[in-house]
Parts: sequence; C-alpha cells; structure tokens
Amino acid sequence: MRNVIVTGVARADLGVVDQLAELGVATVHEAIGRAGYLGPGLRPIQDGARTGGTAVTALCWPGDNLMIHAAVEQCRAGDLLVVTATSPCTDGMFGELLATSLAARGVRGLVIEAGVRDVAELRAMGFPVWSAAVSAQGTVKETAGSVNVPVSIGGQIVRPGDAIVADDDGVVCVPRADAGQALAAARARVAKEEQSRKALADGQLGLDLYGLRDKLAARGVEYVDAAQAMHMDVTT
Amino acid sequence: MRNVIVTGVARADLGVVDQLAELGVATVHEAIGRAGYLGPGLRPIQDGARTGGTAVTALCWPGDNLMIHAAVEQCRAGDLLVVTATSPCTDGMFGELLATSLAARGVRGLVIEAGVRDVAELRAMGFPVWSAAVSAQGTVKETAGSVNVPVSIGGQIVRPGDAIVADDDGVVCVPRADAGQALAAARARVAKEEQSRKALADGQLGLDLYGLRDKLAARGVEYVDAAQAMHMDVTT
Amino acid sequence: MRNVIVTGVARADLGVVDQLAELGVATVHEAIGRAGYLGPGLRPIQDGARTGGTAVTALCWPGDNLMIHAAVEQCRAGDLLVVTATSPCTDGMFGELLATSLAARGVRGLVIEAGVRDVAELRAMGFPVWSAAVSAQGTVKETAGSVNVPVSIGGQIVRPGDAIVADDDGVVCVPRADAGQALAAARARVAKEEQSRKALADGQLGLDLYGLRDKLAARGVEYVDAAQAMHMDVTT
Amino acid sequence: MRNVIVTGVARADLGVVDQLAELGVATVHEAIGRAGYLGPGLRPIQDGARTGGTAVTALCWPGDNLMIHAAVEQCRAGDLLVVTATSPCTDGMFGELLATSLAARGVRGLVIEAGVRDVAELRAMGFPVWSAAVSAQGTVKETAGSVNVPVSIGGQIVRPGDAIVADDDGVVCVPRADAGQALAAARARVAKEEQSRKALADGQLGLDLYGLRDKLAARGVEYVDAAQAMHMDVTT
Amino acid sequence: MRNVIVTGVARADLGVVDQLAELGVATVHEAIGRAGYLGPGLRPIQDGARTGGTAVTALCWPGDNLMIHAAVEQCRAGDLLVVTATSPCTDGMFGELLATSLAARGVRGLVIEAGVRDVAELRAMGFPVWSAAVSAQGTVKETAGSVNVPVSIGGQIVRPGDAIVADDDGVVCVPRADAGQALAAARARVAKEEQSRKALADGQLGLDLYGLRDKLAARGVEYVDAAQAMHMDVTT
Amino acid sequence: MRNVIVTGVARADLGVVDQLAELGVATVHEAIGRAGYLGPGLRPIQDGARTGGTAVTALCWPGDNLMIHAAVEQCRAGDLLVVTATSPCTDGMFGELLATSLAARGVRGLVIEAGVRDVAELRAMGFPVWSAAVSAQGTVKETAGSVNVPVSIGGQIVRPGDAIVADDDGVVCVPRADAGQALAAARARVAKEEQSRKALADGQLGLDLYGLRDKLAARGVEYVDAAQAMHMDVTT
Repeated sequence: MRNVIVTGVARADLGVVDQLAELGVATVHEAIGRAGYLGPGLRPIQDGARTGGTAVTALCWPGDNLMIHAAVEQCRAGDLLVVTATSPCTDGMFGELLATSLAARGVRGLVIEAGVRDVAELRAMGFPVWSAAVSAQGTVKETAGSVNVPVSIGGQIVRPGDAIVADDDGVVCVPRADAGQALAAARARVAKEEQSRKALADGQLGLDLYGLRDKLAARGVEYVDAAQAMHMDVTT
Repeated sequence: MRNVIVTGVARADLGVVDQLAELGVATVHEAIGRAGYLGPGLRPIQDGARTGGTAVTALCWPGDNLMIHAAVEQCRAGDLLVVTATSPCTDGMFGELLATSLAARGVRGLVIEAGVRDVAELRAMGFPVWSAAVSAQGTVKETAGSVNVPVSIGGQIVRPGDAIVADDDGVVCVPRADAGQALAAARARVAKEEQSRKALADGQLGLDLYGLRDKLAARGVEYVDAAQAMHMDVTT
Repeated sequence: MRNVIVTGVARADLGVVDQLAELGVATVHEAIGRAGYLGPGLRPIQDGARTGGTAVTALCWPGDNLMIHAAVEQCRAGDLLVVTATSPCTDGMFGELLATSLAARGVRGLVIEAGVRDVAELRAMGFPVWSAAVSAQGTVKETAGSVNVPVSIGGQIVRPGDAIVADDDGVVCVPRADAGQALAAARARVAKEEQSRKALADGQLGLDLYGLRDKLAARGVEYVDAAQAMHMDVTT
Repeated sequence: MRNVIVTGVARADLGVVDQLAELGVATVHEAIGRAGYLGPGLRPIQDGARTGGTAVTALCWPGDNLMIHAAVEQCRAGDLLVVTATSPCTDGMFGELLATSLAARGVRGLVIEAGVRDVAELRAMGFPVWSAAVSAQGTVKETAGSVNVPVSIGGQIVRPGDAIVADDDGVVCVPRADAGQALAAARARVAKEEQSRKALADGQLGLDLYGLRDKLAARGVEYVDAAQAMHMDVTT
Repeated sequence: MRNVIVTGVARADLGVVDQLAELGVATVHEAIGRAGYLGPGLRPIQDGARTGGTAVTALCWPGDNLMIHAAVEQCRAGDLLVVTATSPCTDGMFGELLATSLAARGVRGLVIEAGVRDVAELRAMGFPVWSAAVSAQGTVKETAGSVNVPVSIGGQIVRPGDAIVADDDGVVCVPRADAGQALAAARARVAKEEQSRKALADGQLGLDLYGLRDKLAARGVEYVDAAQAMHMDVTT
Repeated sequence: MRNVIVTGVARADLGVVDQLAELGVATVHEAIGRAGYLGPGLRPIQDGARTGGTAVTALCWPGDNLMIHAAVEQCRAGDLLVVTATSPCTDGMFGELLATSLAARGVRGLVIEAGVRDVAELRAMGFPVWSAAVSAQGTVKETAGSVNVPVSIGGQIVRPGDAIVADDDGVVCVPRADAGQALAAARARVAKEEQSRKALADGQLGLDLYGLRDKLAARGVEYVDAAQAMHMDVTT
C-alpha cells in the first residue's frame, strides 16, 4: 500500500450537506436505509452541537499525528476532518492548536476515532469534536500515513468528499453521490414523523399507528393476566 | 419459554416510590442492604435528573424494538419503563417519538440496557433516560419478546411493579414488597448521615466516628514514618 | 508486603503545584517529556474544573474503602487524594460524606481508579473528582491496605507527595523532585504555543511551522490527484 | 436484604440433567426457546469438557470468597457450583483446594462470573470450570453474602436446583420445573437437525430447506450481477 | 441503501491465494505495506489452522443470520465466507449445520465479526473459524441485509473476491487486484527474514542488523549505568 | 523525562528465581502478601508453560518496537523480557525473529502489555510468551523510549532485576530484594496447603478447616430452610 495525500477531491454539495445537518444524525441515518452510522464509540466532547461538512480523511499511525498536519492543508471551508488510526489508539492526537488552524480555514469540526485533548479550550472555542476518547497523552510526528483515502470507522466506510452529519447522537456518513437523494428521503421522513408525533402525543399507540398488533399475534406473543403468569414459566 | 405480555401487574405504592426517589439512589441502595443497584453501565443522558416510578419491563431481541411498542400500552402514570435485550446491544432502540408516547401516559422515564437516540430532543423534552449507550443506529420491529416478565440488568433482577429510583448515580430497584420497609430504613439512614455530615464538617475523622482505629490495628496495619518507609518494602 | 500508613510525607512545593495547575494537564504532560498522564480511563464527574495538589495515596481492597478513611487523617490543606484498588473495581468507594471530611481539611479533590457516588452532591459542593466509574454500589470497611505508598494508575507511578494536576483532559502526575523544573518547561512551552497559535490563526500551516514537508517526502508520502488516485490502490 | 444460606433445596432430576448435558448447550438453549444462555463472557478454562449438574448458587462480595466455602457444604453429588459477585470482579476466587473439596463431594464443576486460578492444576484434575477470567489475584474471607439464592449472570436468572449444562459453547440454565420438557424438546430438535445435516451435506441449501427464498423477496432483497453492482450504491 | 445479493463476483486467483496462505498472515500483512489486518478482535476457535480463500461477504442484522443462508449459495470451492453485522453482536450466528453446508461446497472456512457456536463440533469437523466471540445464543432469520457488498471489519475494507489469509495470528485481507504483487513481495520478505533469522540465531543483534544504533543516538536515547540511574529521574 | 538505557542492572538471585518458578504464580503471589500480580489482562499464548527469570524492562511508544531491539542487548541468560508501552497498544510488537534473538541469549520468555505475532512459530520454538493481545499488526522503529527503567503493568511496578514468575495463571513480580524471603514464605505455604489438600480430599470442609463458621455467624449470615426461604426476601 502506498502512502498518499490525495488532492482535488470532489465534495458533496455543501448546500445539501447543510440541510442534512439541520435534520440530524438519526433522521439521516434512517433516511438512507439505516446505514452510515459510525457507531456508539464516537461521542461528542460538547453538548448540543449539530453540524455537517464534507469529509477530508486522514489515516494516522497510532501515537502519531503527522498526517493530521498534512490533512489540514487539504481542508477548505465547509469540510469536516475525519481521522482514524491504523490500530486502536486513545492518544490525544488533536488539540487546541490544530483546531485553531482548522477554524482559520473554515472547517466545521472534527471526527476522530482516537483521543483529543484541550477539551476545555475546544469547548470555549466552539469547535465541535466527536472522538473515541479524551486523553492528554501527546503524540509524535514520525510515521507516514495517508490523506483523503477511504477509511473505515465503526464498520462504515467514509470516502473523501462524503457528507458527514454529527450531533449529540454521534456521526453519520452519507456517500457523496447519495446526498441529494438522502435529503429528499430525510425530509419525507421528518414530515411523516411530525404526524406520528402528534398522534402519539394525543395518546394514540404505536401498536395501532404502525399496525403492530397483528405482528405480535403472528409471532405468537400472548397476553396473560398477572395472576395467570404466576403459574407459568415467563421468567427470562 | 413462551413470549407473553403480562397485564394487570400490581405496582409498588407510588406514594412510597416518590419518597424513595427524593432520597436518591445511593441512600436507597444502602438502606436495603447494599442491594438492587443496576450497575455502573447505566448512565443518565442528562445531568441532575432524579426520578422514581414503578417498573414496566420489556425484553427485546437485539436490534429490534417491537416489544417496546407493546410495553407502552401496559404503562400508566407513575410507571418507569425498564428495557433490556436478550443479548448485548447498543442500538438506539428508543427515541423522541416513543418518549412522546410515554410522556402522554404519565410515564416517569426510561431505563434501558441498550442504546437511545434523539438525546438532544429527549433532554429538551425533560424526559429522563438512563441507558447503556447513545446510538443513532435504528432498529426493526420483527421479533417476539415479552412485556412485564422479570428481567435481569447488571446482575440484579427487576420484576414488574418493583420500585425504581434513578438519579446521577444510576438506577436502583427495590422489590415491590419491600418498598415500605426500604423507605423507613432510608429515612433512618438519612437522619444518621446528617449527624455524620456535621461531625465530619467540624473536622471529626471517620476513623473515630466509625470506630475504625481498632480495625486497622487488628488487621496489622502499621503506622511508619516516611523516613523509615524508605528502608521498607512498602511498594504496591 | 506489609500494610502501612506512612506519615510525615514530604510534599512538592504547593506554590509550584498551583502554578502547574493553571497551565493544565496537557501542557504539564508535554513539559515533562510526554510523561505522567494517568490515562483516558479517569474522567471528571464535572465540567470545567482545573485543580492541583500534592498526592496522598491510598491502596484499597476492591469493594472496601477502609483505607480511604485512614488516608483522610494523613491529608492536609493543598493535598489531593489519589485512590486505587488492588484489583479492578467500579464500586462507589467515595461519596459526599468523605468529601465533606476532605473539604474540611482543605483537600483539593479526589482522583480514584474506582467508582464514586453522590455525584450530584459532589458537583453541588464544588468538590472536584476524577474517577474510573460512577456507581452507587456501596463498600465495606474490612480489609487492610496501605496509605502513602507508591501506587500505579494507568501505567504511571504516583508517589506520595508528588504534584498532581487535573482538568477536563484527565490527570497528570509530576514527581515531587521535578515539579520546579516542570514549571519552567511548561511556561516555556506556553510561550512557544502562544506564537504558534497566532501563526496558525493567521493561516500558516503546521506543515510549514513545524517543518513537516521534508518529513513527509523522506517517508515516501506522495501527493496524487484524485483523478489519478482512482487508478491506484490507496484504500485502507 | 438478609444474608442467608438456604438449605434443603429441591434439585432438578439428575437423570434428566445428565441427558441434557449429552445434548450440549446450544441444543438445550434452542430447545427452551432460545433462552437461558449465560452469555459469551463465561469461557471454559479447558477444551472439550461437557457436563451438567444441579445448581448450588453462591453470591460473594468482590475480592472475597467466604461464601464459596459456605456453599461447598451445601453441595452434594451431581451439583454444579454457580458463583457470582455483587459487583464486577476478576479476582481468582477459586482454585485447586476448593476444587479438591468439591470433587470429594461429587460436584460436577464450577461456573463463576469472576476469576479462577490454579488453572494448570484444575485441568490436570479434570475438574471443569467456566469463568469470566483467569487471575492469580487472591481473595479474603471477610464479608457476608448468600448461598442458594437466585442469582443473575449474563442477563439470566439462575435459581438453586436449576439444571445447568456447560460445554465449549458456554453455559445454559434450564429452570428446574422445565427440565423434563426441555429434554423432550431438545431430543426432537436433535432428530430434526440430523435430517438437516444430511440434506446440507448432500448439497441442499438452507435457503430451500428452511424456505427462506420467499422471505428474502418479501423483504426486498434483490439479486444483482456484479457488473451492475458497480453502478449502484451497495456499499456498507 | 438497497439490500442486494451480488452474483458473479470476480475472485482473486486461487493459486496465488493458496501460496499467500502458506506464507501466513503476518508476512502477507507486512508485504502489502503493513495493511489489511482485520485486528486482534478476531480470534481462531482452533489452534494451528492456516488457510486462505477468496472472500464472499455477508452483512447481517444483529441477532439474525438470514443473510448467511443467502451467502452460502454464492460460495464456491476456494471461497472463504466473511460475515459481519450492522451493529456490534456476539450472538452465535453460525454453527455446525452451516459449516456442513459450506464444507459440502468446498468453502475453506469462516471469518465472522460476531459469535459462533458448536465450537467442539466445528473443531472436530476441521472447519476453521475466526470469530469475535463464542456464544450459544441463537439467532432469528427475519431481517434483510446484503451479500457480496464491501464490508468493514477492524478498520479494514473487505471486498468480495479479495484474498483472505487466516492463521493463529488472525486474518488479513489482500485486495483482489494486488494478490499477485503481494505474493512476490511476501516471498522476498521471507527470503530476507531467513537471512535475518540465521544472523540473529548466531547472536548478531537487531541493533546492528537493522542499523538502529544511530537511530537511538539521533533520538537522544542515552546509556547510563545502573549506579548513575539511581540519581536520575528515569521512572515511567 | 530522559530516555535512557540502563546498563549493569543488579538481578535477583537466579537460583532463587528458579525455585520460585517451580512453585507457580498463585503461590508466590500469596506468599508475598497477595501482591505483585500483573493482572488478568496478560494471558499466555501457550498452555502449560511455567517459567521464571530476572526482569529486563522496555518502555515503548505505541506502534513502535525500537526499544525492544535496544533491550535485547541488555538481556543475558536467565532474564525475562518485560515490555510495555506509553499508551494502550495491541499491535504485534514482537514475533519469531526477536524470539530467535532472545533465545540465542538464553532469555527465558517474554511478558508484554501489548500484542505479539507469529504465535504458531513461537509455540513451535517453545519460547513462552504472556501478552495482552495477539495481533499481526506490524510496528515501526522510530520513537525513543527506555530500557531498564521501572515500568507499571496491571497496577504493579516492575523494576529491572526483579524476579518474574509466569505460568497459566498469568505473571507475578517479586521485588529483587524480597526474592529470598518470598521463597521461604512460598515453601511454607506449599507445605501448609499440602495438609489442607489432604484434609479437603478426605471430605473435611473449609468452613471447619479455616474456622469460618464463627465468621459467618458474626456477620449475621443465617441458615434457612428452602421452604422458609420462599416467604423471605432472599433474592439478589
């Protein structure tokens, strides 16, 4: 495998990405067929941030953030930097100085399957971060890696230029080519959910709203009274 | 094992549960003999919530929230929904719409040994949740499970109708029949702790207050000066 | 191994410790040669606290906080209590009453490689805690351990009297004898970072600021255009 | 909660248990409705053992094996000792001497949600063990617990007298009252699987044998040629 | 995302794959530039197996093995089945019957980022398996997924038709197009290692063989005598 | 912190170490006061090995085994190499070639809080290894660390020259100065255990042998008949 920095990457339409971001991670994930979620291992270091951007990816050696520095140069306004390592790593590969540099370029935030540090400063700056760990452990700048190659996080593939949405629920990746279709589907879902929300708030049951009573019966789920249940084997 | 939805479950006295909730998880756990704590794996998605309710339980298949929908119908005002899965699962089985439905029924909150999503919306609604994960990963509605059967979380057994108390320290379960006795014991503990708090704030030592000096001596713990310690094997 | 409570421990200079604390964990960790960080497993129970103190150490049996009570007596103003257990433990070994006692003695906070409870109360008191878990699970007071012996947390050795700094990034330990030198190095680092921050905010790249372009070339990292990359093996 | 040692516990029929053991964990688990499996966290310390017995349970304090000693006295020939702790624990609570004592009483083996030690000796003795950890870390004998109360491991409830089967796949628990019915169902399953095995060995497909082709179609799964797939979004 | 079963997938040259398999996982991983290793989370259920094959991939829902049945039909002699799930899962998705079916088709083995069961039977059959867990927990056949789409395991992307090598060190994936080049590089490495092995066995040091003494000096590593070291800060 | 390679380290008496090794990890751990065990995270890659040696320590950067090469030169016959990393790491830092080099110097084995690879070859060579992971992931040789400084593994401190014993139960470290005393205590323990073993094999109970009946009573543990227990709260 060669180590490369890929330049001139095509990005998802930023206008579309921004609208996806407004709809949030869970909605977008559902809209593209329950796909693209980068997993519960990536948590926000701040509460209440919701952002979106186009992916610039960096693949680093554990304990080494050399390639993040190389990635910064490839970032432009509207991007969101997505970093992972060639093996599991919790070190604080990213901190306030790198965030200063990215913010100066109009980068929307950071998603990193490793650690970050200076979290108090990052929160104060308003630079949003989703990471696998918080750690002050510093890193070296010695070993080659790649920028803007496909990377894999949480069982999902992130390609440079893909649309990334991140909020309190985590991070979702929408393939670049699918962003427009994802937006249409997500809006349709929001409209439908609005109706469901009203019905449920009025006391209607999901069992009826989603037609689940027949499913329960078809799968042999029985209703029994508590008094009967005492004489049955209903324990876990 | 049959899959059942048990109806007509007897609940712990809600007045008692509410008073237990005021006293908090740690106090109630101690009062019932250091029992019933559902473990450090269940964390609140919000800060500062403290609530209590009577357990409605749901046992789901991993990646499938069909039985949560069935459980909603069994919930009434004062209940707290307790969900687990037949095998380890981090998926976002529960979100804003289900919370809307539960809130409409007067349910106090959710305890789930799996994931939740829409956490920004849940916090905004003021619907408190304790979960094992935050994840946007969606679920299907395909596989049978049970409602209001005994379930096991964190090495503890939760039976439908049991008293549940949850706060920033996690979640504790008090068997329905023991709720009254637990309240009396918890109040006694609070009174005693109030005295201890004053003594400790005044500078008295726990060593004296709890009579621990003799224990240390009986177990062979020696006091040595730092200068002596340098010549001894006192390392870990 | 004898179980001992070591008295009369020499402490790092508290004036120096206080100045280290102002500089924060990441800076101090870097200043002493990327050393002393107690790992990402210790997390603050509160946001935004930054403190420092001289270490009093306690080594407990799992599920047993007897030695914390013994350690309280060895604490004085400016200390920070550092607790670990002889085997992995998540139990809530420490809570509001112990914090009341420590606060009365002028102790700065708690670092514990185990669980804490009463976190709502601890936050309200403003007593800062870094822990490996939050758990209401109570402990007994039965088994001997030691106070003010060297302990090991996160692969680092903490000796009684060492300087401890803790903030949102975690906890760092500076050997007592090195505290002064660490402060000088940390200040030099801060000054240098201030320059870097300005340069980066002005749009200069880390690649240039830190002279990394030659490193990339020397390690064989190639720049390729996205169009070319499609015909190469550049995937992870 | 009182700490008790329950005596005179009724056991599942040992003849039935022995026949369940021959059929193995996976078969028994399926036969009782995909229930009772104590989870992937319990692993055998030896290869190739398959055993069954009636449960004697012990609930210990972490780092403390006092109640295992109390449990030994409650064990009789055909029993299998099931141990857990009130909070997560990896310590080596059990070793060769306790195994010698149990073997002398005709006990079939040990299931422990904690650690064991002396594993070379246990293997040499032929005393089978399923545990959550191997650890030489020793324990004390100081804190009360219970014997022959219901315990919970891996989300399952084990009651004293239940039938336990353990093999290379882990451990399954069958409620005492259901053992006979479980045996009948397990035998029926084995007979059916024997037919399936022959069909599959002859090259028949599970898709046909289990009638899954319609399921795939009903769920919208499409067959596409690799050449077509290159133009579709079929990535994870 | 559509759920598809991709047919007519091009495979890596099986003759090349077989030769890669003889060289083993670590050698192949190094030969392709320290890439393609599926991580330490996949462990063999047997000792001493070393195999290789061309990847057929299956992407399942957690707790559901429907798509494994669909994948079997896509397998042919020389293939190796690679299974993962859309979210973390330890359930026993695969056992003896599926192995019987695969063995009948000449499939070389299974790599699964989830659980397997019937491990005693699988070992007896000589059907090699690398898995993330052993678990008897059964699964349903209800939810759609895909076959022969790119999947991601351990941060690596596996595409249908890629060359897979697996042994006691785990599993490595070589992109189909790179298999020939990987074989050449792996053989060169083996030849070079044979020389190194002889030199090292004769007592030559890696410091000299690999020219590392200058590296140590350039990085400021100092040699100090133990007597001096006692007066320095050389602790971790 | 300076990076150093400490030479001329004093070792524990090898004759004593060899005798400690015969007694095994659990016995030695108990004999030194339940201390020195490096935790359940270090597992043997082979079954049935039991060895001992004097510690040469190496502290590496994650993903980098430069310092292992430096450590080899410091090893002599009777040593056992103990490796850890400055942050958590699972990479395969050590394999067959390094083992060849160590074996040529008479080194007894490897203890590594990281990964190893070539495990089939290591087993075939009879070079025993205890590690935190098995991983084929290769490492670089770029970053400085130290040799023969105190390191910390599993909450224990290992100093160069300390006596290390390792077997199927894991690894224990005895401070160099305590090795002789540890041997005497371990032998006394073995003699005592031999008596206990006979008594227990003859059917005597630990409750009587260790005088535990009074302890149970003093701690309020009650004996109740199963019939009574049904009317009590004795659940977990």
